[in-house]
Amino acid sequence: MWIDCKTIAKKIEEGVRNKVERLGTSPKLVSVVGVNDPSVLSYLKSQMKKARELGISYEVVEVDGRSVLRVIEELSRRQDVHGIFIARPLPEGIDEKEVAAVLSPEKDVEGIHPRNLGLLAYEEERFPPCTAEAVVKILESCCELSGKRVTVIGRSVTVGKPLSLMLLKKGRDATVTVCHSRTLDLVNATRSSDVVVVAVGRAHFLKRDMVKENAIVIDVGINVVDGKVCGDVDPSVAEVAAVTPVPGGVGQVTTALLFEHVVKALEMSLHG
Amino acid sequence: MWIDCKTIAKKIEEGVRNKVERLGTSPKLVSVVGVNDPSVLSYLKSQMKKARELGISYEVVEVDGRSVLRVIEELSRRQDVHGIFIARPLPEGIDEKEVAAVLSPEKDVEGIHPRNLGLLAYEEERFPPCTAEAVVKILESCCELSGKRVTVIGRSVTVGKPLSLMLLKKGRDATVTVCHSRTLDLVNATRSSDVVVVAVGRAHFLKRDMVKENAIVIDVGINVVDGKVCGDVDPSVAEVAAVTPVPGGVGQVTTALLFEHVVKALEMSLHG
Repeated sequence: MWIDCKTIAKKIEEGVRNKVERLGTSPKLVSVVGVNDPSVLSYLKSQMKKARELGISYEVVEVDGRSVLRVIEELSRRQDVHGIFIARPLPEGIDEKEVAAVLSPEKDVEGIHPRNLGLLAYEEERFPPCTAEAVVKILESCCELSGKRVTVIGRSVTVGKPLSLMLLKKGRDATVTVCHSRTLDLVNATRSSDVVVVAVGRAHFLKRDMVKENAIVIDVGINVVDGKVCGDVDPSVAEVAAVTPVPGGVGQVTTALLFEHVVKALEMSLHG
Repeated sequence: MWIDCKTIAKKIEEGVRNKVERLGTSPKLVSVVGVNDPSVLSYLKSQMKKARELGISYEVVEVDGRSVLRVIEELSRRQDVHGIFIARPLPEGIDEKEVAAVLSPEKDVEGIHPRNLGLLAYEEERFPPCTAEAVVKILESCCELSGKRVTVIGRSVTVGKPLSLMLLKKGRDATVTVCHSRTLDLVNATRSSDVVVVAVGRAHFLKRDMVKENAIVIDVGINVVDGKVCGDVDPSVAEVAAVTPVPGGVGQVTTALLFEHVVKALEMSLHG
């Protein structure tokens, strides 16, 4: 069975469009790109298209090398910019923490600033990482999380770690296990879980015999095999479990949430 | 079997004493107390005694009600103050997030500021919450964490959540499950774990039949029953597992780490 993520994404997008209309002013997202990579540029093109659809002003700033940090600092100060998106991969020699250090937490629509990550521990989701939030939204749309055993495979800054904090939030109340490349007996963890979230970046990593029947499986992976995009979950898993598709799954909801954050950033700037 | 935490605490204290001597200047810790509670005042007295032993300047500031926030703000600006400790319970009507919002992250020796918590996701332990760090130090002293299944019971801002991030850090590589009051089948999780950390605040909560043989059990609880201090772990657990005692276990290491953070705060202020 495949989980319909398109409807979830559409609903978020509709909310964004309505809010922009009501605000009467257009929030602005700037995407910073520091590498010349055709797949990145094609992604930014689709981002621009979506921004236009939703009534959001959009600008791409191409920079090279270390000037990416200076540009992010400048954008952080610019009053007409509400959200800053930084395209990955980052230029060589720049790491995620350096980027987060120069980015204004008020414009951190991706949810990568340490302060916004730390607020998750306080159960405050000001700007949660978009992908982690997308997983939560999808899960909330298809099950009652309270009491569920959730296994998250992957311990990244943008998915595994923040997602575990978000799923533990009071009211959600999931019991969360985070596994990773050093986990022994991964199958034991996944087979005893009601929900499995896979964010490892390896095509078809999760196989059918690794999940229990009727589990919910969220596929965060985006891999390219023989020129085709596929996820971390083997398609055969959908024969026994409810699975989010790739493409058209988590990614679509993630993009919608990025724009929701841009609107929120504008609102926050208006209300001080 | 009981785990010897005193030796771990002594070693940290020795390191603190040596560093203070080498620095040739005394770091200053100020403890803010906003409630008149005999057990809090007695705790601060022992804190003062320990500070003196280690060569750390120490001051208690008693305030009432809402002025606690103003006082923390003032202390955050004072150049002669390197670390600020805030006694719990907080005065009525004040919550943890408000306190964290006015506290300088550079003087956050308890590790409660969102920025310092968020840095844990980036695997940077600048000022980790002292109790969570104490658990990590104790575990590292008695086992190889990599590949271990660790269950943490409790999802607090100061223990459960940051501890899970810290145990997942590369190099430590534990597989971490966080359980809490809404977890179904807790025993299944604890019995299949190599390490169980209990931070629920309920006397003798973890019973002997809830852990597997030769497990390592870390008792974070501090409860008072019939005028005597006891932990969250039933003493009978020590017949089958290695357990940290209460008192004289995690708490002692936590206090030593608080002072280590005060020295670190001074060092960081010296090196800009």
